[in-house]
Amino acid sequence: MKIVRFQKEDEIFWGETDGHVVIKLKGDPFLSIQRGNEDCPLSAVSLLPPVVPSKIILVGLNYIDHAKELGMLSPKEPIIFLKPTSSLLAHGKSIAYPDAAERLDYEAELAVVMARTGRNIPENDVGRFIYGYTCLNDVTARDIQKRDGQWTRAKSFDTFCPLGPWIETDFDPGDKMVTSRLNGDVRQSSSTKNFIFSIPEIVSFISRVMTLNPGDVISTGTPPGVGEMNVSDVIEVEVEGIGTLKNSVVSG
Amino acid sequence: MKIVRFQKEDEIFWGETDGHVVIKLKGDPFLSIQRGNEDCPLSAVSLLPPVVPSKIILVGLNYIDHAKELGMLSPKEPIIFLKPTSSLLAHGKSIAYPDAAERLDYEAELAVVMARTGRNIPENDVGRFIYGYTCLNDVTARDIQKRDGQWTRAKSFDTFCPLGPWIETDFDPGDKMVTSRLNGDVRQSSSTKNFIFSIPEIVSFISRVMTLNPGDVISTGTPPGVGEMNVSDVIEVEVEGIGTLKNSVVSG
Repeated sequence: MKIVRFQKEDEIFWGETDGHVVIKLKGDPFLSIQRGNEDCPLSAVSLLPPVVPSKIILVGLNYIDHAKELGMLSPKEPIIFLKPTSSLLAHGKSIAYPDAAERLDYEAELAVVMARTGRNIPENDVGRFIYGYTCLNDVTARDIQKRDGQWTRAKSFDTFCPLGPWIETDFDPGDKMVTSRLNGDVRQSSSTKNFIFSIPEIVSFISRVMTLNPGDVISTGTPPGVGEMNVSDVIEVEVEGIGTLKNSVVSG
Repeated sequence: MKIVRFQKEDEIFWGETDGHVVIKLKGDPFLSIQRGNEDCPLSAVSLLPPVVPSKIILVGLNYIDHAKELGMLSPKEPIIFLKPTSSLLAHGKSIAYPDAAERLDYEAELAVVMARTGRNIPENDVGRFIYGYTCLNDVTARDIQKRDGQWTRAKSFDTFCPLGPWIETDFDPGDKMVTSRLNGDVRQSSSTKNFIFSIPEIVSFISRVMTLNPGDVISTGTPPGVGEMNVSDVIEVEVEGIGTLKNSVVSG
């Protein structure tokens, strides 16, 4: 099932979609799925980020082929960082290239959406805590990242966390292609089977640091091939079995 | 005015306090202050963190005397990082020493609480966007910070963001002592006049990265003298003109 959030005539709704038509949902789909009687074409609504997280946690280097590309050893533990919720951007909306940045990169990622509150979750119990999966673009001002050393500022500008277009609740993340396309050309393409840390390992690890809440987003790192975007470029993040998150770049 | 949040018989309230008595407030004090008719001793209520932020942003090295102590040059721009809201801890509650950590440090800080939504705030307009000030302890697992390089995990464990005891709305941050005491002994003590970046500079800088929301917390860095805490220690963060945030350490 594909869960969307959308705006129509100044009101915000949850919906279920098949990619063409949206059926409005009643109440909170994190509690129960109750279909309403109204539907409309997906193209007639303005999509929002498909979830309202209390936090967005991301993992650094997590693809064996990306580590090799960088000539680095695989890390022993995941390196985590946070993006603020103010950086969220919906499918179809524009990434704002900040005046302060000189190089802006895309990073295609598979993201996990949490279903319920969890802390110290054992790896073999992680599945029960996952609501679904979506696509995330970890937009990064590469020059600022290098200058600061700490990654936070470079990854926290408004619009730097495109997420969506929807949450796919029926998805097996074991061997799925994660792809980015810049103006239609494939730039990143690798399988989640190349993960250094599996999703149960990542979620369990993070839950041993911080309490995870329903709707919290955990992103799983990016494949090799990250590169630069410029104003008027179109960037797509596709995760096989979920869909394609598409955004353009405008000047900030 | 001192604004508190507290819990009484499973209900959550906003209140105003003089440090001895709490008067319940009606509605949201970020919109308007409406005093109710009920009061009770401060000692009879269970304080909560005095605000519910959408994000907590902190600044690294920001005291000239701390930079000198570390033999470092003053940074040209603030280095920022985030703590998750799940790390918030109220005055009087216990910091949990994680099993995963081998060294736990206190960092006494003055924190700003935002009043309203702001983006690209000019330095000379920052005052209008500030609701008040409070004390913050940037608890850090120093060994994890060194191992990870990125600071996020080391600073993000549950209970690692003691905040409070209240928001002081009448406060001039120009030359105030920021002090920590471990088991009653002064460990850090410096004035905000030693800031490398002023509060208008910090808030304006961060607002040029991310939209700030009402209740968001911005912490201003820590004075020299950071050091280690152990289980059963009591750590106090005092900001002159605000009050004292006191927490004990327990095993995780």
